[in-house]
Amino acid sequence: MEKELTKKRVYLFEEGDGTNKKLLGGKGAGLATMTQLALPVPPGFTITTEVCKEYNNKALPEGLMNEVRSAMNKVEEKLGRLFGDAENPLLVSVRSGAAISMPGMMDTILNLGLNDETVMGLFKQTKDERFTYDVYRRFVMMFGDVALSIKREKFDEIFEKYKDEVGVKYDHEMPVAVLKKVVKEFKELCERETGRPFPEDPWEQLETAIKTVFESWDNPRAIAYRNYHKISHDLGTAVNVQAMVFGNMGNDSASGVVFTRNPASGEDEFFGEYLPKAQGEDVVAGVRTPKPVSALSSDMPRVYEQLVNASKILEKHYKDVQDIEFTVERSEFYILQTRSGKRTGKAAIKIAHDLHQERIITKEEAIMRVTPEDIENCIFPAIPWEDEEKARYMDGDQTLTATYLGKGLPAGPGAAVGMVAFDADTAERMSKEKGLPTILVAPETSPDDFHGMAASKGILTMRGGMTSHAALVARQIGKRCIVGAEASGMKLTKKGGQKVLVSENGIEVFERDWITLDGFTGKVYVGELPIFVPEELPKELVVLLEWCDEVAEIGVKANADIPEQIRNAMNYGATGVGLCRTEHMFFGPDRLPIVQRMILAENEEERVKAVMELLPFQREDFKGNFEETGDKPLIVRLIDPPLHEFLPSEIDLVTEIYEAKLEGKTDEELRDKLVMLEKVRALKEFNPMLGFRGVRLCLFYPEIIEMQARAIFEAVIEHVKAGKKVFPEVMVPLVGMVKEFAMAKEIVDRIAKEVMEEQGVEFEYLVGTMIEVPRAALTAGEIVEAGAKFFSFGTNDLHQMTMGFSRDDVGKFLPFYIKKGILKADPFVTIEKDGVGRLMKMCVDEGRAADPKLEVGICGEQGGDPESIELCYQVGLDYVSCSPFRVPVARLAAAHATLKNKKN
Amino acid sequence: MEKELTKKRVYLFEEGDGTNKKLLGGKGAGLATMTQLALPVPPGFTITTEVCKEYNNKALPEGLMNEVRSAMNKVEEKLGRLFGDAENPLLVSVRSGAAISMPGMMDTILNLGLNDETVMGLFKQTKDERFTYDVYRRFVMMFGDVALSIKREKFDEIFEKYKDEVGVKYDHEMPVAVLKKVVKEFKELCERETGRPFPEDPWEQLETAIKTVFESWDNPRAIAYRNYHKISHDLGTAVNVQAMVFGNMGNDSASGVVFTRNPASGEDEFFGEYLPKAQGEDVVAGVRTPKPVSALSSDMPRVYEQLVNASKILEKHYKDVQDIEFTVERSEFYILQTRSGKRTGKAAIKIAHDLHQERIITKEEAIMRVTPEDIENCIFPAIPWEDEEKARYMDGDQTLTATYLGKGLPAGPGAAVGMVAFDADTAERMSKEKGLPTILVAPETSPDDFHGMAASKGILTMRGGMTSHAALVARQIGKRCIVGAEASGMKLTKKGGQKVLVSENGIEVFERDWITLDGFTGKVYVGELPIFVPEELPKELVVLLEWCDEVAEIGVKANADIPEQIRNAMNYGATGVGLCRTEHMFFGPDRLPIVQRMILAENEEERVKAVMELLPFQREDFKGNFEETGDKPLIVRLIDPPLHEFLPSEIDLVTEIYEAKLEGKTDEELRDKLVMLEKVRALKEFNPMLGFRGVRLCLFYPEIIEMQARAIFEAVIEHVKAGKKVFPEVMVPLVGMVKEFAMAKEIVDRIAKEVMEEQGVEFEYLVGTMIEVPRAALTAGEIVEAGAKFFSFGTNDLHQMTMGFSRDDVGKFLPFYIKKGILKADPFVTIEKDGVGRLMKMCVDEGRAADPKLEVGICGEQGGDPESIELCYQVGLDYVSCSPFRVPVARLAAAHATLKNKKN
Repeated sequence: MEKELTKKRVYLFEEGDGTNKKLLGGKGAGLATMTQLALPVPPGFTITTEVCKEYNNKALPEGLMNEVRSAMNKVEEKLGRLFGDAENPLLVSVRSGAAISMPGMMDTILNLGLNDETVMGLFKQTKDERFTYDVYRRFVMMFGDVALSIKREKFDEIFEKYKDEVGVKYDHEMPVAVLKKVVKEFKELCERETGRPFPEDPWEQLETAIKTVFESWDNPRAIAYRNYHKISHDLGTAVNVQAMVFGNMGNDSASGVVFTRNPASGEDEFFGEYLPKAQGEDVVAGVRTPKPVSALSSDMPRVYEQLVNASKILEKHYKDVQDIEFTVERSEFYILQTRSGKRTGKAAIKIAHDLHQERIITKEEAIMRVTPEDIENCIFPAIPWEDEEKARYMDGDQTLTATYLGKGLPAGPGAAVGMVAFDADTAERMSKEKGLPTILVAPETSPDDFHGMAASKGILTMRGGMTSHAALVARQIGKRCIVGAEASGMKLTKKGGQKVLVSENGIEVFERDWITLDGFTGKVYVGELPIFVPEELPKELVVLLEWCDEVAEIGVKANADIPEQIRNAMNYGATGVGLCRTEHMFFGPDRLPIVQRMILAENEEERVKAVMELLPFQREDFKGNFEETGDKPLIVRLIDPPLHEFLPSEIDLVTEIYEAKLEGKTDEELRDKLVMLEKVRALKEFNPMLGFRGVRLCLFYPEIIEMQARAIFEAVIEHVKAGKKVFPEVMVPLVGMVKEFAMAKEIVDRIAKEVMEEQGVEFEYLVGTMIEVPRAALTAGEIVEAGAKFFSFGTNDLHQMTMGFSRDDVGKFLPFYIKKGILKADPFVTIEKDGVGRLMKMCVDEGRAADPKLEVGICGEQGGDPESIELCYQVGLDYVSCSPFRVPVARLAAAHATLKNKKN
Repeated sequence: MEKELTKKRVYLFEEGDGTNKKLLGGKGAGLATMTQLALPVPPGFTITTEVCKEYNNKALPEGLMNEVRSAMNKVEEKLGRLFGDAENPLLVSVRSGAAISMPGMMDTILNLGLNDETVMGLFKQTKDERFTYDVYRRFVMMFGDVALSIKREKFDEIFEKYKDEVGVKYDHEMPVAVLKKVVKEFKELCERETGRPFPEDPWEQLETAIKTVFESWDNPRAIAYRNYHKISHDLGTAVNVQAMVFGNMGNDSASGVVFTRNPASGEDEFFGEYLPKAQGEDVVAGVRTPKPVSALSSDMPRVYEQLVNASKILEKHYKDVQDIEFTVERSEFYILQTRSGKRTGKAAIKIAHDLHQERIITKEEAIMRVTPEDIENCIFPAIPWEDEEKARYMDGDQTLTATYLGKGLPAGPGAAVGMVAFDADTAERMSKEKGLPTILVAPETSPDDFHGMAASKGILTMRGGMTSHAALVARQIGKRCIVGAEASGMKLTKKGGQKVLVSENGIEVFERDWITLDGFTGKVYVGELPIFVPEELPKELVVLLEWCDEVAEIGVKANADIPEQIRNAMNYGATGVGLCRTEHMFFGPDRLPIVQRMILAENEEERVKAVMELLPFQREDFKGNFEETGDKPLIVRLIDPPLHEFLPSEIDLVTEIYEAKLEGKTDEELRDKLVMLEKVRALKEFNPMLGFRGVRLCLFYPEIIEMQARAIFEAVIEHVKAGKKVFPEVMVPLVGMVKEFAMAKEIVDRIAKEVMEEQGVEFEYLVGTMIEVPRAALTAGEIVEAGAKFFSFGTNDLHQMTMGFSRDDVGKFLPFYIKKGILKADPFVTIEKDGVGRLMKMCVDEGRAADPKLEVGICGEQGGDPESIELCYQVGLDYVSCSPFRVPVARLAAAHATLKNKKN
């Protein structure tokens, strides 16, 4: 039967298979469905997408027009009108309709079938000469523009000329006599431009229109749209030919649009508007102010009842909120189109939730209805865009246009507005002392800038990628953030001694000037845009995420270092901490001097002494963290960064020293700095990412991880003594060789034993490792055999090494690579599947072969990215771990991944 | 029969299987073989290694001593002497003998069987009282020391006391009466120390001695030796009990050592020495000057004849040069031991060559007899060490001891002696202007230092690893080189304004002081040591390497950039150039300013202009290279380093600018520097290894590789026009994604087509890629499908990324890692097998699956390392490519790899 169907090329609406969008296009399928649901749809037929594929060389396939004629006869019969008839003519619309909606990209011709004879018939039927000639004028112009490729402006010129002549302001004020002249002159224009008279034969008009629609599949605009949205160029469009109905035929006519539920709030309320005596396009154009759809209940009660009825039928049929176009022609109610209604994130969540509660959709369907963006838009502040691409936003009732400044990578979702501060201290001062909303704008950020970042509403950096320091910290503490803006030509410079941010086209932004960041898109605007700030998770989202948790076969933990972050993560539903970095335990202002003493120590004794001074700090840190995780596991990563990160940079020191010398300071006075410089130089590395850090450091200076292990276990014991059970997991970073892991584990186990013996208390713990060095992934089996109880993919470093990309430098060519299609996406956002994904799969398989109970997760930044979460599910991970504010999205994505990939 | 054999625990020499070293130990097997060849070996027997394994808790296995007694009876019968007899006593030696020789590590007891009764028998037989008591004295001391664990010094004290008392200088001057007292006092010492009388019963002596030898298998010295040489601790030692013969019984007695061929030159000449009236140990101890073995022909013609005869028999039997110990007791000739003779590299090669020519061994055996070190020692200069570990060297006839300064990584084999220069300019001036032999000593080197390196005899750097700039360049231009010496505590500092190299123990070396580098070991010595400099490849080596080429199933190419290097490589037998780097084509002093102009260009036009100025230079470079490769393939790698390598470093610029400012220069005067600094900062990278280089640069600035491709192809055409055929292969570096390769190939193909059309000449070429990014190895199939005709493993970068090791920084922890056994070897010297080797195998398999003709090689530094060459053979590579001076070693290693791994 399927096969037979594909042979048929023209389907009446009552014949088509409404589920076969591929063949009939979305619009055609909808019209078929509605017709078969006995809803009042103007009759018509659909020419399939197969014909579009066949169509080429400007000729329709043989015999197609015969099928079209026979379908048209059925339509004529149904309406009692004849196509091309001078008495009671049938007019039709000819519309495109692809399987995947491409709004506005392809062609449409309305009112087809009019000529100098049939126009008389239209007049006879309507008795409205103005209406009749207005329709005629519209048709000639549309046909000329779309089918004959005559520039629209040429028609407009003629029309404007007459308007001026007659002295009218609005189109509908044009006298009938003039309209007739306009039609004539339009036709002359067509003949002049094409060298042939305007086609009077309705069948010729129809054939031309059908070809035109097919050809529009390949217009440059449509191709670009498909490229952008990754839609196949092979799908083709269908053509829908449908009897015209007129909402503008008189006061008992109208056109309108209705949503079956409120698309902004998701409330179950009928929502829409209509215009009496108007065609659909008038509603959209906004020439007159439409009435709310509720007014229809008193204006046209019978129609309103039909509309409500139809809405209910359609929502039930499609199991989703519908966006319905309707027309009333002389009190006769018609539906012209139905489609799934676009909605805000908040509405999407509420609707999905409600539809399940109403037993219209299953829990799984409800989950699949919500996108990660819906949740993002729902939990983060947003600019109320009317049209984001055109930078048009709503400010109360007004639509305004924002001034675009530049663009970076959207590193922390949500919008922020504030006054510019060019360094962390200023940002903090402006925010804390003056109470000003602040945006920190800097070349890049470092751990030194944390206080300024924390005090700001948002962060904008010139350099860095999606996993730069600024990006990581921003996501972790839930700040809006845009990084790497220099790619769009923005730069930080000085003018008259003042720091200034300059855009590519020369706009200058000084300290305390207002700017707005859109962390969803990465765009930066001048000035103070309005921002809608959500309060807390909507209750429907809370419920929906619980459903997600029920369904998901991959868990969600959080990357969180301090109690506050862990608390946020737990509130958002994390099932544990997948990565607690301990770097901040060395960086705090009360600790850094001790750490520097440790590094500068001239012998082991001095070093051990300094290290042990850090113990009480870290023990308290861990104690606080375990307080928050409670009965959920906490994975602590041992010290990871290279030591030189704790010292000033060489270039800063050299600069400082020379500046002091220029001021007359002597070497003797600068002795401390010079000693520091020597150490900095000794520790300097060419490629610190691949240098002396992680487990390498841990083994070389075992006293550091001895101290860390002790701090963890002593903190554990305090909880155990207080009658609580906590679940510490100790993670060794940067392991590449099995013996590295084994030696680090030996130290941790030894300290655990010591602490237990000292305190006479037992506790449980696990030791595992990051998988971030490709060699570790390639030798996973032996690492498990050496006693690793868990793996956690450090996908930032794993991508850096597997792809040979330095995360901090990749900005120089990554945008170019993505543009050229060398890479599909930024691998620091979405896991690169074919290389890195393959390596992960190998690693998981071999690790589990050695120990089927091995727990495997991911703690790289990609752990919060839906596409990556799906990959993680596919390669068999137990959980993903992401920044706290990303947890809700990850829970949804985890459920999506499970539902999409479940093997049943 | 095998099984039955293993049950037997004691084998007479005439019974043992001389090929079963595992059971009988090396010495026992040799004695068995010689006995069975009817050579005059003093009779005896071997207790197997199996017994050693069984032996524990200080008790010999039950019944063993019965077997020993019965074997001893056979020996007694053969000699007509009785063990423990007071008339004609049999004395025996009890010696260890493991399967693998561990010289001096285990115990030996000579003259066993003596007591106060048997000593009288010995005297009766020899009629030499001094001899008799001297033997007795030696036995008691040796037994006391070895079997009773009494400190040797305690015996020495007693002996020295009597020597002082009597007033004699040499041991052999001691009067017999005193010797008797000494024996008595030795025995008293034993009783005092052990609490038991010295064992008079010869059987008790024997049992104790056997136990002692077994126990010596596990003495700390032996364990350390086995650990160092990676010998299994499970093998155990055999015990050899053999009748004593005495070379010191009178003037018709003698002891000597002979080599069947000259172990220094390999000449087929009888070589050795002997001492009349002496025991073997006296020859070794060097108390008297021995006579050349040739003297024996007149001194003891019958013995000489027997010796020559035995030598021939043994060399033929073992098919190798033998090192034979012999003793003459009262004109009776005995062989005590034979073993494969140690020889110099040169001798090893000549002997292997000659033995095959003499049809004693096969070609394959000849190849396997030569080691890579033999070739190295033969082609590079060397210090004539007498004992390298003790730093004792031969200077003419003298043995002197060198003063050790420190140690680094042996990055360029061979020894070099010269005067220290602390920078490249000084090195060049000292060498070129003053004609002084120079050693360049520097913290590290950069391309700027090339002239100084080229002018020096050797290079010593404080930092860097086996593939640092200094190491790479040194190997390529054939210089001795030691890098990373700071690991041994050496450092460069200043003293009184002068640069000075200071060793860990404070030795100071100033400019123009002499030092000597041993590039084989990485050790540095103070002063001017003698050096033996070989001239050209010995003719036997040339022949042997031809045999290697016949056998080898993996080829050897060279990494060579310029004509001179290519010429060297070809002379050494390379079959092509596996890697021609093009960096130097940008770095030359006539080019660098153009390159800098290219980098600093403000627009594409300026940049293209600068790039095209480089074309004629590069075309000439390639033309010269093709001149040398002729009909062999030349693989050219497109530009690889990041652009900032062509600019000064940030820190240097900042320093320079500030120094100028301190001298009063204004910003205006420093404008150029400041502009340069801005560019340098813009190009700066955190991890340049993983940054904007290789194909990334090639695609971003296609004009650069367009120029390079043009230069290659225009050079090709000049040769084609001159009637020659050359074989260019263009290699794209740093490919990670298939599209990178495809886009670069497209450019190269386009330029090839353009050049062919412009010149009307056709030529052949291939395009392939480096495999150095792990992701490329993981996606090899698709890169081949995109048209790559060859792969070349860039194992330096592949190791950097797969293991997460920055080659330039690894020095901070690599020595520690090797010491701790975390890594077996430096992966930048020997390919890491389990991780990187596995990845290579995957890559080769998948690449060949896509195209069975795919040519795969390696051009990383490891390509010259024998162990790595074997791995390359195992994973299926077609060739290795190494530095020119490494080619002979690689040809040997290629043959070795084939012979060892051939699947027949």
